[in-house]
Amino acid sequence: MSSPETKAAVRNFVAEREWGQFHSPGNLIKSIAIESGELLECMQWSEDIDPARVRSELADVLTYAYLLADRMGWDPDEVVLAKLHETSTKYPVEKAKGKSTKYDQL
Amino acid sequence: MSSPETKAAVRNFVAEREWGQFHSPGNLIKSIAIESGELLECMQWSEDIDPARVRSELADVLTYAYLLADRMGWDPDEVVLAKLHETSTKYPVEKAKGKSTKYDQL
Amino acid sequence: MSSPETKAAVRNFVAEREWGQFHSPGNLIKSIAIESGELLECMQWSEDIDPARVRSELADVLTYAYLLADRMGWDPDEVVLAKLHETSTKYPVEKAKGKSTKYDQL
Amino acid sequence: MSSPETKAAVRNFVAEREWGQFHSPGNLIKSIAIESGELLECMQWSEDIDPARVRSELADVLTYAYLLADRMGWDPDEVVLAKLHETSTKYPVEKAKGKSTKYDQL
Repeated sequence: MSSPETKAAVRNFVAEREWGQFHSPGNLIKSIAIESGELLECMQWSEDIDPARVRSELADVLTYAYLLADRMGWDPDEVVLAKLHETSTKYPVEKAKGKSTKYDQL
Repeated sequence: MSSPETKAAVRNFVAEREWGQFHSPGNLIKSIAIESGELLECMQWSEDIDPARVRSELADVLTYAYLLADRMGWDPDEVVLAKLHETSTKYPVEKAKGKSTKYDQL
Repeated sequence: MSSPETKAAVRNFVAEREWGQFHSPGNLIKSIAIESGELLECMQWSEDIDPARVRSELADVLTYAYLLADRMGWDPDEVVLAKLHETSTKYPVEKAKGKSTKYDQL
Repeated sequence: MSSPETKAAVRNFVAEREWGQFHSPGNLIKSIAIESGELLECMQWSEDIDPARVRSELADVLTYAYLLADRMGWDPDEVVLAKLHETSTKYPVEKAKGKSTKYDQL
């Protein structure tokens, strides 16, 4: 949603359908979790995933994530960049390199 | 990740730590679901959410979603826009207006 | 919770702490999803799981599932058995044998 | 699955369909998370839940939780009781009474 076109398209889609009334932060958070479950379902029995299906479910996760950011007055890219900065401190390159260990066990 | 700066920052963060080896599509999909659960935890007992905490957890969902898109060779904004187009057909304005009903029950 | 001892122990644990006030069906449903995310975290980067950690997270999922059943006036085992009966019809042995295909594609 | 009847019924259902081959701990853990998402979907837009639908989705969570326990060689009720004991220490009655605060902030 960093691009003004995407932001406008998502907002317009919701506005036309008068769906903003359902989009409380709480409902959007639940929706992100629900769609993440559908994304996970793409690999329930096998890691051999169907890209088209993954793309479609990822779209739902992203759309609700964009809507939540917009509802809270945030820009998705800024949200990501600010956290990246924070995480960099928790996982310094020299300590975290090549390891999937959680920061509190590094 | 539509903005080239965000895309570069996320990629660089991962590359510096040599974490790409852990980022199979399957592991990223699991990570999105895990972080969505942490986002949901922000409202486990009350809808009275702490914006800073929500922002931090939403960042994790978005980052893994961006990483999955990038890994699959997709642009997040294009993923969202293409699905929006598809969903528009499933939920025509005149039928869906003001309703949270699922398309197969509209 | 089919065993009367477990049911009594879970109920007593909650009652002593006066936590029933937080256990609306909605909050319990969210809690099940949150704990499922923590269970999934046990295998975020590898299928090589730590049984003790899995056991501890599975316990949380089960406890909230038991609490939700109890709150709704249901016995967990009856809930499972009734659905098993239903699923048997959707997945007849001769059609479903050895396949992980979803019923609508069988 | 504490009751021997439920345990036998679930095992038999899986054995008849030769589905045990799909039930690695990892696949069962993913399945629990997926079904928890469907359970959450029962309250996506409203807390005014449909009990029959909740019961059906809770059944799926419980069934996969039972299957995971069985696969790991655990009894679900013992899993719950052991964790309850542990949680009792983390949340002593005198400190936790009437509060939904997490133990590390009590």
